[in-house]
Amino acid sequence: MTIQSRSTPPRGFPELEFEERVARAQKMMAAAGHAVLLLTTEPEVRYFTGFLTPFWQSPTRPWFVVVPLTGKPVCVIPAIGAECMARTWIDDIRIWSSPNPADEGVSLLAATLRELITSEGTIGLPMGPETALRMSFNDFNRLSEALSPVRITDASPIIVALRMQKSEAEINKIRHICSIMSGVFETLPEHLSIGMSDIDIFRTFKIEALKAGADDIAYLVGGTGAGGYGDIISPPSSRPSAVGDILILDTGATFDGYFCDFDRNYIFGDTTDAAKRAHDVVYRATEAGLAAARPGNTCADLYNAMQRVMDAGGALGNDVGRLGHGLGMQLTEWPSNTPKDMTELKPGMVMTLEPGMTFAEGKVMVHEENIVIRDGEPELLSRRAPATMPVIR
Amino acid sequence: MTIQSRSTPPRGFPELEFEERVARAQKMMAAAGHAVLLLTTEPEVRYFTGFLTPFWQSPTRPWFVVVPLTGKPVCVIPAIGAECMARTWIDDIRIWSSPNPADEGVSLLAATLRELITSEGTIGLPMGPETALRMSFNDFNRLSEALSPVRITDASPIIVALRMQKSEAEINKIRHICSIMSGVFETLPEHLSIGMSDIDIFRTFKIEALKAGADDIAYLVGGTGAGGYGDIISPPSSRPSAVGDILILDTGATFDGYFCDFDRNYIFGDTTDAAKRAHDVVYRATEAGLAAARPGNTCADLYNAMQRVMDAGGALGNDVGRLGHGLGMQLTEWPSNTPKDMTELKPGMVMTLEPGMTFAEGKVMVHEENIVIRDGEPELLSRRAPATMPVIR
Repeated sequence: MTIQSRSTPPRGFPELEFEERVARAQKMMAAAGHAVLLLTTEPEVRYFTGFLTPFWQSPTRPWFVVVPLTGKPVCVIPAIGAECMARTWIDDIRIWSSPNPADEGVSLLAATLRELITSEGTIGLPMGPETALRMSFNDFNRLSEALSPVRITDASPIIVALRMQKSEAEINKIRHICSIMSGVFETLPEHLSIGMSDIDIFRTFKIEALKAGADDIAYLVGGTGAGGYGDIISPPSSRPSAVGDILILDTGATFDGYFCDFDRNYIFGDTTDAAKRAHDVVYRATEAGLAAARPGNTCADLYNAMQRVMDAGGALGNDVGRLGHGLGMQLTEWPSNTPKDMTELKPGMVMTLEPGMTFAEGKVMVHEENIVIRDGEPELLSRRAPATMPVIR
Repeated sequence: MTIQSRSTPPRGFPELEFEERVARAQKMMAAAGHAVLLLTTEPEVRYFTGFLTPFWQSPTRPWFVVVPLTGKPVCVIPAIGAECMARTWIDDIRIWSSPNPADEGVSLLAATLRELITSEGTIGLPMGPETALRMSFNDFNRLSEALSPVRITDASPIIVALRMQKSEAEINKIRHICSIMSGVFETLPEHLSIGMSDIDIFRTFKIEALKAGADDIAYLVGGTGAGGYGDIISPPSSRPSAVGDILILDTGATFDGYFCDFDRNYIFGDTTDAAKRAHDVVYRATEAGLAAARPGNTCADLYNAMQRVMDAGGALGNDVGRLGHGLGMQLTEWPSNTPKDMTELKPGMVMTLEPGMTFAEGKVMVHEENIVIRDGEPELLSRRAPATMPVIR
């Protein structure tokens, strides 16, 4: 397995990266019969422009990017974003004074779309799984009426194809945050002690992650439980940890807008043999996943390789619904490691391997690593977890 | 002005809080002709159930809450959330194994809606300003077809009316995070020095906020600029700060899922008289906003009171589009302090006063405080900023 680089990659991307993204999109648009693409969500806007801001936390203002069949994307955005967007590679930035509920950019966007639709074809909008429309439904209906009879059709396959295979510049960012967080997990036992509550543990973890170079810890879930935990999406509780507990922390930290997503398990003092055996099973399931992570195999192959180990190891089920997924600009992205997902693995796909199983009534064990599919064996982006759970004393 | 409490409020809410929310909703639903409400977004799901998790970072799975005309809300959610949701006050939790793109909860949701629609009326869905639909557009179309001929109509007015006026339990959480972050801003100069980059300043600020008791710093923007800054929504740069710079930090930190949203300005060494005058103007504009923040006045009155001071102080404009807004479960909520927003101020509304002005070519000065409208004078939730900008040396 490749050793991770410790050097900090540059922030942002060279303009060539965006040119290539747009060129790939335009080729697929022509084939799919889209005259333009209309994008409204944070990752899509960022993918085509490089526009990175936490301002998306405010739901007040919509943001629009239109990708024409030729030439650069055009942005239709609130005036508050003009200066930030002007620092990207985009030239054509059209603004309105927002908030203005009476016309929240709708007429400006409609006029822009009419201008950029220079051929037969539909307006392509992501409408498929794991997408959403980030504008009010009333405004979307107004927009549709203003553009009639031009049809709006699903452009999800284009967005999925583009974003699922990462460039080396994207992989560098993910590798960097994975390396940072691997170090945080490795040194965590030095900062924890028996009796600390989940709230204190989460706070300590976040502080150590920031000190180590993470930009943000956008996602942190987990917790402690006697002999195991039952739930992996909860916020922390104030319950004090005790000897016998297992702690899981599952984190999506970011560097320059790119996520890691992996977890680690720890023992407080000592714990049950059942929990130790379960950890051994999910560890070995991950090894099977690594062995199956080859171009030409499918996500279903990954699932089956990991599930076979867990079935043999006494798994009683799994509420997560999948054994890993894509990641990158978002904590989770297409595809999903399920028995039904026949997506073919290709070099450049960044994935989690996330075998999880119920091993006793209300007790779950989940393990997770981040990899990139390469020709031949995959590259581990997270540093491989220890084969046995570290002990906190 | 009331002095803030320093004690930590309890996490979560008593069941009575949710009963009252639902009762208010049901009364308005009956008046508006909705047979049920359908909710898909994080704040709405949390408002009616108490379900708090960062798992919303993953776009893969939709989550649904249905509020019937009588009785408790019913949840239709992915199996991964069952245990976390079971700890809320909700009894009726219906799950499907997700991800399953072929039927991502749609048939289960349609059956649930059909069962809960026991009278004439529409399905109320938030469709108005500052709302979005958090499910794929294709799935929404499938759902609409499955439910035909029942119509889906806009329930935004109900959601806005409910969430705009906060309960005392909600205000306690906002007051707590405002108090924590006021302290972080007050002691920040001890932790900063001239030459630090924005990236280092942001990191330091986040660490201090976590140490002080913030759960998360979901939103942090700002930066430094010689004699002023030009843009208030950007992520941090690696440019080293220098004598003459102004630093603004604008943060939305959270406690138990509730936000503060205010900013502070600092001088590195010394700066221009123009910048100092601009700070004095926005400080006095805030005083005018505080004086106008009385029940019965409107958001337009707040805007006009603050804008008058800035016009007299030489303001050259403002790209933000408003001078403050509501906040609570989200960084920004309805209403907006604009000349057109005639929303009447009522006790319990939590608002920002955010006067901002361009005072020179490419130089902006923004100031912000958080208040709650009370009978009589407002309560300051953030501790009032110093009248002159603190100096970092």
